[in-house]
Amino acid sequence: MDLHQLTRELNSKNDSKIVLLVADGLGGLPMEPGGLTELETAKTPNLDALCQRGVCGGSIPIKPGIAPGSGPGHLGLFGYDPLQYVIGRGALEATGIGFELGPKDVAIRGNYCTLDAAGKISDRRAGRIPSEESAPLAVRLRQVKIPGIEVFVEPVKEHRFVVVLRGEGLGGDVHDTDPQKTGVPPLAPRAVNAASQKTADAAAEFIRQATKLLAGEKKANGLTLRGFSAKPALPSYEEVYGLKAAAIAVYPMYKGLARLVGMDIVGKAQTLTEQMEVLKENWDKYDFFFIHFKYTDSTGEDGNFSEKVKRIEELDAAVPAITALGPTVFIVTGDHSTPSFLKSHSWHPVPTLLVSDCCRYDGTKTFGERDCLRGGLGIFEAKYLMPLALSNAGRMGKYGA
Amino acid sequence: MDLHQLTRELNSKNDSKIVLLVADGLGGLPMEPGGLTELETAKTPNLDALCQRGVCGGSIPIKPGIAPGSGPGHLGLFGYDPLQYVIGRGALEATGIGFELGPKDVAIRGNYCTLDAAGKISDRRAGRIPSEESAPLAVRLRQVKIPGIEVFVEPVKEHRFVVVLRGEGLGGDVHDTDPQKTGVPPLAPRAVNAASQKTADAAAEFIRQATKLLAGEKKANGLTLRGFSAKPALPSYEEVYGLKAAAIAVYPMYKGLARLVGMDIVGKAQTLTEQMEVLKENWDKYDFFFIHFKYTDSTGEDGNFSEKVKRIEELDAAVPAITALGPTVFIVTGDHSTPSFLKSHSWHPVPTLLVSDCCRYDGTKTFGERDCLRGGLGIFEAKYLMPLALSNAGRMGKYGA
Repeated sequence: MDLHQLTRELNSKNDSKIVLLVADGLGGLPMEPGGLTELETAKTPNLDALCQRGVCGGSIPIKPGIAPGSGPGHLGLFGYDPLQYVIGRGALEATGIGFELGPKDVAIRGNYCTLDAAGKISDRRAGRIPSEESAPLAVRLRQVKIPGIEVFVEPVKEHRFVVVLRGEGLGGDVHDTDPQKTGVPPLAPRAVNAASQKTADAAAEFIRQATKLLAGEKKANGLTLRGFSAKPALPSYEEVYGLKAAAIAVYPMYKGLARLVGMDIVGKAQTLTEQMEVLKENWDKYDFFFIHFKYTDSTGEDGNFSEKVKRIEELDAAVPAITALGPTVFIVTGDHSTPSFLKSHSWHPVPTLLVSDCCRYDGTKTFGERDCLRGGLGIFEAKYLMPLALSNAGRMGKYGA
Repeated sequence: MDLHQLTRELNSKNDSKIVLLVADGLGGLPMEPGGLTELETAKTPNLDALCQRGVCGGSIPIKPGIAPGSGPGHLGLFGYDPLQYVIGRGALEATGIGFELGPKDVAIRGNYCTLDAAGKISDRRAGRIPSEESAPLAVRLRQVKIPGIEVFVEPVKEHRFVVVLRGEGLGGDVHDTDPQKTGVPPLAPRAVNAASQKTADAAAEFIRQATKLLAGEKKANGLTLRGFSAKPALPSYEEVYGLKAAAIAVYPMYKGLARLVGMDIVGKAQTLTEQMEVLKENWDKYDFFFIHFKYTDSTGEDGNFSEKVKRIEELDAAVPAITALGPTVFIVTGDHSTPSFLKSHSWHPVPTLLVSDCCRYDGTKTFGERDCLRGGLGIFEAKYLMPLALSNAGRMGKYGA
């Protein structure tokens, strides 16, 4: 049973407001056994006060023991089963740089590589060429012309770039051209199915012209293409929840993920304070607000415990601006944990807090990993947050008579 | 993996007794943040004493955030995945009025409607005609005769009635005739598949004759038919658990639901005290007893917090009559929450208590929402209660060698 089958059938509209505040990588770990996590260390009077009239729990992004990337982490929070809905690597890469994919697009992740005199790959990442050197190459590759197809080339970090082919009848299923080893030439693009033959042909033509354009380069004189993918077919928030939704994010990746589920991207905020202003300005126009805060993740990735603590305190300071608007349902969570101790995304349940008038207060006093474990939401899969949000907002009818 | 595949393979018989006491809509909410729920407010010395030698938890009827109707709520408690086993609307309506469906039956929910001179619907609910006026119409419709098919018509509340067609080869898949709007005539019954063509034809004939019989009525001069459904194919308690099961309920709906899973309906109790007498009388004849107590739900639906508290105390007072019989496993739970605060069924986990000699006591002191959250059963889906009951009764072998 698809959860969206239930939300599609049971949702109803009212004038409630739901706020989903996502502190990326919120969950953490102590730096030594018996210590406190970043969140437990941080002074969070506003979040603690919310706990005292809310219900808490630990959100499992995918399944126990599975650490997610940003894509599946957010899909889970948005209520899209991250094991069912998969965003192709090309589409995620394009989304991450803010490229707005359309229905006729195939997105492809490109890598520059080094080819020897015989055309065999001697370095799969072109010596990890720095971004300053690789960015102009992407601009150069825009000279590629393919009849009937619009070609976009965008630089990404170091040896990476994105190609988007736009045209009629372009299927998204083409095998990678990266042979995953050196000493052999790149593979030719091969279509997985007949519907993708035109894409494979266009990719072959792209490679032919691009290799000519790169011929004079020392390091980046070749390329491989990976992760061919059409725009993922995600039903919209309006379709599955009956919600008019807005995203207030700073980074392109999170705007892109929100756009894929049909949220409007509102404002041009660069700071959390500005995000709060955008929220206020748009309060009357939407039912649902996704607010993304990046720095709890990036400080965790850096292994910077004390800086992550500070960023959590910055987040806490923004809470009153949200509560002042009187949301019907206010959720604070993360898309995954990013413990400074691990310097990476992790699988640990994410501290989660839901406040509404009917949330069944659970006696939690402070917002932290251990308190959340004993909370009324229990340890639950992230994909259930949206049905919970809808129900707490009075937007869900009952299942069966 | 179907849970019943496991219970079918692993169950074994012994002379244990299992009691499932269902307080309908048991779970609640405080009336203000930080307050106590109905169950937390009620004085429940007997249930608290059971907690002190039992294990507690919070039962999720369907999935987090999904509030169930009585049908799916009870199926979950009975261990039938409520998303897998769906009882059609017609079958549930028939069940609710105590009509015992047989294998050759198709149950249909009927609505009286008002037709204008052109035969178009002007009121889909016949002005919500009162039950006193509508009940005689159902009796009149029993005059309908269809060759080779037995026709039953039973009154329900206000503009509603139930039709059951009984005969050979009647498939249950026919589209609703209710166009869901006014200004158009009712739709003709259309079969969804070839196996239901005979049903569609019989329904058309029913409508033809019934419309004649209703022609003189001012409000209820027409009808629509909805929720065509055969008797749901639910395996019996004997089949899936090896249990000879009895139901001790007052209301037809719960007797009907129990009958659908093969329980015997025993006694004619009208009060909880009488239900306890029926239990005692039948103690030696069955392995499993389902006892249904309605009033924790109806008081919650009324928003009557203090009356719900009283009903919980009434329930508590019945507990010694059960423990006196020495059940091997005694479970107290609800099919869903019905907080007085919401005046409706809700999605919140239902306080649940299981007592047996091997239940692993969890230190819970009192029976209430917040205590149950910290209990040894955790927050679990209702469908797992039956395997837990069987295991605690020594009726389940191990899975694999």
